[in-house]
Amino acid sequence: MPVTVAVDANGADMGAAEVAAGAALAAAEGVNVLLFGPAAQMGAPGPGVEVRDTPLSVAKDPDPARAVRSNPEASVVQAAGAVASGQADALVAGGSTGAVLAAGLFEIKRAPGIYRPALAIPVPVPDHPVTLLDVGANAEVRSEHLVQFAYMGAAFSTAVLGVGRPRVALLSNGEEAARGTPEVVAAHEQLAAGAGLDFVGNVEGTDITSGVADVVVTDGFTGNIAIKLSEGVSATMIAAIRTRVESSLRSKLGGLLIRPALRGLRDELDPETSGGAYLLGLRGTVVVPHGRFTRRGYANAILLAARAVEGEMAQRTHAALEAAGALRRRVTA
Amino acid sequence: MPVTVAVDANGADMGAAEVAAGAALAAAEGVNVLLFGPAAQMGAPGPGVEVRDTPLSVAKDPDPARAVRSNPEASVVQAAGAVASGQADALVAGGSTGAVLAAGLFEIKRAPGIYRPALAIPVPVPDHPVTLLDVGANAEVRSEHLVQFAYMGAAFSTAVLGVGRPRVALLSNGEEAARGTPEVVAAHEQLAAGAGLDFVGNVEGTDITSGVADVVVTDGFTGNIAIKLSEGVSATMIAAIRTRVESSLRSKLGGLLIRPALRGLRDELDPETSGGAYLLGLRGTVVVPHGRFTRRGYANAILLAARAVEGEMAQRTHAALEAAGALRRRVTA
Repeated sequence: MPVTVAVDANGADMGAAEVAAGAALAAAEGVNVLLFGPAAQMGAPGPGVEVRDTPLSVAKDPDPARAVRSNPEASVVQAAGAVASGQADALVAGGSTGAVLAAGLFEIKRAPGIYRPALAIPVPVPDHPVTLLDVGANAEVRSEHLVQFAYMGAAFSTAVLGVGRPRVALLSNGEEAARGTPEVVAAHEQLAAGAGLDFVGNVEGTDITSGVADVVVTDGFTGNIAIKLSEGVSATMIAAIRTRVESSLRSKLGGLLIRPALRGLRDELDPETSGGAYLLGLRGTVVVPHGRFTRRGYANAILLAARAVEGEMAQRTHAALEAAGALRRRVTA
Repeated sequence: MPVTVAVDANGADMGAAEVAAGAALAAAEGVNVLLFGPAAQMGAPGPGVEVRDTPLSVAKDPDPARAVRSNPEASVVQAAGAVASGQADALVAGGSTGAVLAAGLFEIKRAPGIYRPALAIPVPVPDHPVTLLDVGANAEVRSEHLVQFAYMGAAFSTAVLGVGRPRVALLSNGEEAARGTPEVVAAHEQLAAGAGLDFVGNVEGTDITSGVADVVVTDGFTGNIAIKLSEGVSATMIAAIRTRVESSLRSKLGGLLIRPALRGLRDELDPETSGGAYLLGLRGTVVVPHGRFTRRGYANAILLAARAVEGEMAQRTHAALEAAGALRRRVTA
């Protein structure tokens, strides 16, 4: 049975028609799409894409949690509701992480035994792709949250990125087990003693891009700064090289000669290739493409969401956390 | 009267003779140097450099605080002592930040009204140099520490880097005043209400390299990860570009043609240009060159330490904190 993905067409900088085009690309690869947004702008995207006319968008609302609760007819709420009711297997909704997080928690709900959902991003590092989480869902965490993020990230890496036995590291300000905030030190202890995970210890900032780990775990404050700094440094470096290459005729000619060799690198660094951020820890898979993505980025987000469903990411996460005794204990009366 | 800088020649990867050569370069620019280390390895560096034979090094000790307290004859302790006794105006000591921090606190002591010293680094960003602090002296901070770091960083930027009215920002996971950890939110409030500082609000990770601020303030955990990640991303990008340029004859030729245009960029990105990290908030100026620095990096560290003394960095910091009412209140009996 093909996977069905509910897609919110609102929130994209390029408009709902661009998202519809991305949905059509994904449908051509065999994924069923339920497309929520303004039907008037989307027309009939093609076979495999069913349009549900839900024009109201809350993507630009400054208080996304309130907007989601008070607008049940909003496209992101309707799309999340389709996952909650079983009509769809996964949600793709871009543009406003806050609105997607709120709609996900409100409609799809946390997976059993999970403390907090976390936002994971496959960082586009040349030659050494790495998954970083949390990149912004939780500005503050306790050690047991970091421990769960480690298992959630590992399951994502296997189910979506195909990494057989992902090496998982904790981000800290030193490699020694005792370095870091009290939360990081306690999480290190629990992960070192835990089962079912290839925990490689603490890594420093330098090692996010060095290939020593497949998954790097941190709190949402540090992770958000790290992913944005990484984008900033890449962009600044490329701009600085371009300015200098264009400064003389000789180097301009050199730039023309190396351009074909660098084309692959540009694709490798393109965030649209990895589909965006992944909200882990809910009862269904949720992917958050960046608002500036084109149809290509949306299509990848839909295809990777389908891959997470096929790879049974949520089930893998639950089984690994259960085996490690790291599920949240329910309070019984 | 020329400035006198006490230099610890131990701790450098290239040995004490390389540090002595750096001291001679700085002395040729008019700075007096008191050089602490193994006299047998350093010979007579030349005019303006006085060697004090103190061969014992604690730079490799796993417990630097203990090593500093129990080895008063160690070179870093003797060099810090020269600043404490007024024989020298500033300290330059590389290789072990922990040992320098311990010797600085133990001998030179905190400046009046300062809660915690902080480690500042001029980040080598092409076209947009920026000072980041704290990059590792305090893994956990309170809001009043962040507020002091802002004033300390501004005084450094003016006295050492010559920035007339530095724009100071707080690093957070969102630009809005309410985003971040409780400590960041409280520090934002205090800085926005404070006097004598060009506070530009919160910046995200992307903006560390974008030129919107001259000084970016954060805790030592996040700052340490940020500076190392920034180095890691730069290095990974350069390595990835090099590999691809060397992949064909055509692009190799292009690489030769652009090489001269990129030479300046390499110098701009070279951490030796900025002399290393600066330990702010003590009664004297302290600079920590990286252990791998050559004589050039050490010479720059000595020259920039002298510039901090001439620019009255410590006095500027104290006056600004006093005017803002941000000095630590003394408990009176």
